[in-house]
Amino acid sequence: MVLNIDDLDYLGLGKRTRLHRLMYEHGPGNGRLLILPIDQGMEHGPVSFFPNPPSEDPEFQFRLADEGGYSGIALHLGLADKYGAKYAGRVPIVLKVNGKTKIPSDAHALSPMTASVEDAVRIGADAIGYTLYVGSPKQVEDLNQFRRVKAEADRFGMPIILWSYPRGEAVEQTGGKKSLYAVDYAARIANELGADAVKLNVPEDDPERRSQQPAPYDSLELSYEERVRKVVKSAGKTLVLFSGGSMLGDDDLIYRARTCLEQGAAGLLFGRNLWQRGWKEALKITEKLKKLTLEL
Amino acid sequence: MVLNIDDLDYLGLGKRTRLHRLMYEHGPGNGRLLILPIDQGMEHGPVSFFPNPPSEDPEFQFRLADEGGYSGIALHLGLADKYGAKYAGRVPIVLKVNGKTKIPSDAHALSPMTASVEDAVRIGADAIGYTLYVGSPKQVEDLNQFRRVKAEADRFGMPIILWSYPRGEAVEQTGGKKSLYAVDYAARIANELGADAVKLNVPEDDPERRSQQPAPYDSLELSYEERVRKVVKSAGKTLVLFSGGSMLGDDDLIYRARTCLEQGAAGLLFGRNLWQRGWKEALKITEKLKKLTLEL
Amino acid sequence: MVLNIDDLDYLGLGKRTRLHRLMYEHGPGNGRLLILPIDQGMEHGPVSFFPNPPSEDPEFQFRLADEGGYSGIALHLGLADKYGAKYAGRVPIVLKVNGKTKIPSDAHALSPMTASVEDAVRIGADAIGYTLYVGSPKQVEDLNQFRRVKAEADRFGMPIILWSYPRGEAVEQTGGKKSLYAVDYAARIANELGADAVKLNVPEDDPERRSQQPAPYDSLELSYEERVRKVVKSAGKTLVLFSGGSMLGDDDLIYRARTCLEQGAAGLLFGRNLWQRGWKEALKITEKLKKLTLEL
Amino acid sequence: MVLNIDDLDYLGLGKRTRLHRLMYEHGPGNGRLLILPIDQGMEHGPVSFFPNPPSEDPEFQFRLADEGGYSGIALHLGLADKYGAKYAGRVPIVLKVNGKTKIPSDAHALSPMTASVEDAVRIGADAIGYTLYVGSPKQVEDLNQFRRVKAEADRFGMPIILWSYPRGEAVEQTGGKKSLYAVDYAARIANELGADAVKLNVPEDDPERRSQQPAPYDSLELSYEERVRKVVKSAGKTLVLFSGGSMLGDDDLIYRARTCLEQGAAGLLFGRNLWQRGWKEALKITEKLKKLTLEL
Amino acid sequence: MVLNIDDLDYLGLGKRTRLHRLMYEHGPGNGRLLILPIDQGMEHGPVSFFPNPPSEDPEFQFRLADEGGYSGIALHLGLADKYGAKYAGRVPIVLKVNGKTKIPSDAHALSPMTASVEDAVRIGADAIGYTLYVGSPKQVEDLNQFRRVKAEADRFGMPIILWSYPRGEAVEQTGGKKSLYAVDYAARIANELGADAVKLNVPEDDPERRSQQPAPYDSLELSYEERVRKVVKSAGKTLVLFSGGSMLGDDDLIYRARTCLEQGAAGLLFGRNLWQRGWKEALKITEKLKKLTLEL
Repeated sequence: MVLNIDDLDYLGLGKRTRLHRLMYEHGPGNGRLLILPIDQGMEHGPVSFFPNPPSEDPEFQFRLADEGGYSGIALHLGLADKYGAKYAGRVPIVLKVNGKTKIPSDAHALSPMTASVEDAVRIGADAIGYTLYVGSPKQVEDLNQFRRVKAEADRFGMPIILWSYPRGEAVEQTGGKKSLYAVDYAARIANELGADAVKLNVPEDDPERRSQQPAPYDSLELSYEERVRKVVKSAGKTLVLFSGGSMLGDDDLIYRARTCLEQGAAGLLFGRNLWQRGWKEALKITEKLKKLTLEL
Repeated sequence: MVLNIDDLDYLGLGKRTRLHRLMYEHGPGNGRLLILPIDQGMEHGPVSFFPNPPSEDPEFQFRLADEGGYSGIALHLGLADKYGAKYAGRVPIVLKVNGKTKIPSDAHALSPMTASVEDAVRIGADAIGYTLYVGSPKQVEDLNQFRRVKAEADRFGMPIILWSYPRGEAVEQTGGKKSLYAVDYAARIANELGADAVKLNVPEDDPERRSQQPAPYDSLELSYEERVRKVVKSAGKTLVLFSGGSMLGDDDLIYRARTCLEQGAAGLLFGRNLWQRGWKEALKITEKLKKLTLEL
Repeated sequence: MVLNIDDLDYLGLGKRTRLHRLMYEHGPGNGRLLILPIDQGMEHGPVSFFPNPPSEDPEFQFRLADEGGYSGIALHLGLADKYGAKYAGRVPIVLKVNGKTKIPSDAHALSPMTASVEDAVRIGADAIGYTLYVGSPKQVEDLNQFRRVKAEADRFGMPIILWSYPRGEAVEQTGGKKSLYAVDYAARIANELGADAVKLNVPEDDPERRSQQPAPYDSLELSYEERVRKVVKSAGKTLVLFSGGSMLGDDDLIYRARTCLEQGAAGLLFGRNLWQRGWKEALKITEKLKKLTLEL
Repeated sequence: MVLNIDDLDYLGLGKRTRLHRLMYEHGPGNGRLLILPIDQGMEHGPVSFFPNPPSEDPEFQFRLADEGGYSGIALHLGLADKYGAKYAGRVPIVLKVNGKTKIPSDAHALSPMTASVEDAVRIGADAIGYTLYVGSPKQVEDLNQFRRVKAEADRFGMPIILWSYPRGEAVEQTGGKKSLYAVDYAARIANELGADAVKLNVPEDDPERRSQQPAPYDSLELSYEERVRKVVKSAGKTLVLFSGGSMLGDDDLIYRARTCLEQGAAGLLFGRNLWQRGWKEALKITEKLKKLTLEL
Repeated sequence: MVLNIDDLDYLGLGKRTRLHRLMYEHGPGNGRLLILPIDQGMEHGPVSFFPNPPSEDPEFQFRLADEGGYSGIALHLGLADKYGAKYAGRVPIVLKVNGKTKIPSDAHALSPMTASVEDAVRIGADAIGYTLYVGSPKQVEDLNQFRRVKAEADRFGMPIILWSYPRGEAVEQTGGKKSLYAVDYAARIANELGADAVKLNVPEDDPERRSQQPAPYDSLELSYEERVRKVVKSAGKTLVLFSGGSMLGDDDLIYRARTCLEQGAAGLLFGRNLWQRGWKEALKITEKLKKLTLEL
């Protein structure tokens, strides 16, 4: 039930070559993706590194991606450029091409560009990451910006991973950014817009806010498994990666990973849950995740 | 009384070749257009697919367009690219080049770009679709965006179907988006701007809001037939396609189709009314619609 | 006292060739301009055509311009492209390159682009028309847009007729859009900006609002003739065309035309006053106007 | 103490050649500049010409510049193009490349472009004029616009005269647009931004508003002479031209001119004070001003 | 612990050549940077020069940079162009490419462009300076503008020094622009965005506002030394320069310099603290600073 590269028959040679590297030449190697993001220093600030101070040095994450055998590392141009050379060819790069700080508020969320597709080509990245805030008051600007990125990516044969995140007041009024309604919409949008992969949050079911959602979501009572499967289906021919979010206990993390993979996700894009642990623990949990991806 | 391709003597070779494919080489084949839109996943979200769950997979609509013998399928770049290859040459593509989500509100409606005319050329589309919100507070931005699209389309010989939709507060204050005043204006605009075809809603006559319209619309009492004929005339040398809107019963749908075609429409652009039905029912109603287009 | 083409010694070869066509090879032929506008379907909507239903078909206006022997017809790209071919070489085109609908309100009036100067060249137009809203809160955007149009027009040798219209709250507070102060300013602006011709409204003198104007306009009491002459002088080396506005009786229309021409206007740009009449009446009044231009 | 062309050792060949024409080949001929502006028809409207009706015809100012022997004439593209040919080579042109009308209010002052540096090259201008509203809420847009103009000017070797005018609410709250604080800042900005010359207003000292200025301006009590000298110093290696403002009596005008020139100004940019006088009077006062520039 | 040029192994040849000039061929010569900024005339206005009137002439700062042996001088294009020629090859230029005035308020801080990277190349600058207002409501515009600058800088091999300044209402609500939280974030951003060096303010610890910061900053009590070290670490592989801010006494200034250098800063970017002193005093304190950089 999981998409493999032959299901993505629309890929041109460049995209296929690059995705092949992420899916079969690095990481688990069976088509599943285990990607380590390190853009939290920009998105959340240095607070992200307090739980595990060595993680403040991006060398920590590069080494983890290398020794842990990740499919790739996702980060902004500055970190890629400054810390990546030593790992060239060993740790594939997913270049985040837009991002924002936690200040100011998310009310009009829009992530400006921090790099171009051309930068991704120049540094030998195997994919780019773009954050789209579905439903934000700035959605018009965001979609136009994405289109320009996609046109460049198509021209250069660069795969696109869409961080498809519901945001904004209108989203809050219809169940919130983690509601099934919102995440499901975000998944579909990724497919409609032609992303090659999409990063989603696991949809939550908050009984108190369920009725805020439009019909028929307001009356749906789906299990964790069913919700994951629903959004994977809505993503159609788009590889789905689930995020880890803030720090979870081991069991919760493994449960999340297992469920996502069982329900059709192409992979995991877990960050803080990995590198907010000390080195040995991070490696250990990495091994568990890789084992999961090989079993399922 | 219906326009045929020779009436559109302004068409250059490229536009004529492409329109010819839609009008005479696919679908009914007599110049009438039966186009299946599948952009609702973007415009309304996955809620659109609940009435008929298999329709969530765009393969459903492509197969329907193919087996039902539609003139073409209208959709965004992601779906065209990912699901269209198998149907290349069999199902002509109308590439929607702009669109928006249902979130946030329509108060300042403007559909950002999701693809370019060049994309349409690259994937072998036979027309593009552009949504213009006539009367929206963002009209200036919208018209400027349309002009850039049109310039590119003229350069590449790509026909333009204009989704000409009244929207916004000022429209609400003068009878609403489905009033004859609003739809009639939208039809004329399409002709003035040089669209090759226009998608319109069937104008409604709400006696309670009739007087909100400017003179002389405020005192017009036209029948369903007359209203349709009026807007077809206002569209002048622009092929008119009517939308189906939300789900109707069989009789209502056939009545709508027959009236539109009798009153001069070039064709129908029905989506949810087709693919929100199960497979067999969808094929059956398709047959009825095609029969109608051949009779009239 | 009326400018002839030799007074416009700044014209390059392209502009001179094209203006020569409008001034001496069509219409009255003595340098006076009689231009028929048909952009009201966009600016006011199909309401414009109710008084004379056949006028809804742009063929009506093209035929009137042809048989009536007008200097040219002014309209948007869609109408020019779709209806003009039959009249190529017989009815010169003034391509309106911007415009807007009547919805929404004029408070922040700005007309977005509907065509480019390159379009005008491509379709063989002899001039372009640009609407500038003098005094509008969007004036900065408008002037910048005009400058880009003018740069292209200068490059291609395409004459510019400026619809120079006062608009916006600040204008309303200083006597209104038809006050002498406002029209006089609009006339001067056309000369300063380098328009080749300017379309103006006849300035009105509303005794009740006279004092709202800045000094010395607040104490001027000029006759109809004097007001017309004043704004013609302010336009300097810019050909002045006066608009007809909404429907007038025959005598009023002839009086307006005569006065404008006597006071130095280069011509008339009357639309609704012509084609809101039936065919014969429209031809008859056209003859009268042409006779006037030959007498004066 | 006045800058001569050799002090401006940063000038490339193009700028030096053009400035040389203004400073030594026309006007007083000793490096001092006497420039006649005629952009008031745009900035203030035709009201400017009521005191001396013949001045409504730009021919009046061109002839005055020619017979009076001015260093140049400053105006917008339309007037330059239409009236300048006869004076080519005799009256150097300073092409104003941006400007605005008096309507609407100055609260968000920003002058849109009315011409490009390329236009200035095409018409053989010897400098361009740009109006910057220092402190305006639109300052970001204004500075970005200026930078694009400067980049073009540097590329083409075209000298820039900066109309450096404090404007906006924040300026009003710190002493007003003519306070020493504001004018001094405007002078420095011109030097920082790389203008070749700057047009300033003579700073006023309004005892009632003095304390609104930031320290130490709030406690400075400088004479007319000292204020002029202060801002000339702040302009550094930028030629300073002082404006005349609205109509002054002969003695006041000569006093202003003498003081400015004595305190280091490179010249005068007086408009209304010249051409709002009748022809003979205008010539006479011109002679006085030229004599002054030769004496000092 | 201080970065030397070999630690910056990501530098291409152009950036390395230029940075080498700043770090080893001028100034202390041991890799430490002593840069003299003179952009305060733009940022704060001529008020900056009252404490030491000769400093109003940029020649003062150029001479100080030359005789004092600074690594470079940081300033806008106008000053660089007009005053720099005499010092070409002796005083390296850091060209500020954006900036703003003190008017209007900082609430929506954004520094528009005043020069381009191409200008920097043309005038032989060895780095550019860009001011980013982290957390400003205009952050989206700012980051997009920065990205365009960085793309050009990467293309031309021009090093970027980022003035990374927290600003805006949201910043004020979380401890203020000099809080450890804010400065630490600003330091990390510089590294994420790929600046080659970053100018930071020394983070302050205001006990009253400490708790406004997000956890865990709200409970951190770090010494001056520890705060400096923290932000230097957050800047990672980005050379850190500390600003001097407004005038300090000699001891305070030396203490600040020593602490910053001891805690890993690459250098100092002190302006007013140098040139608001008289010539001899300025030279004397310069000598002290250079001695410090050689000792540490």
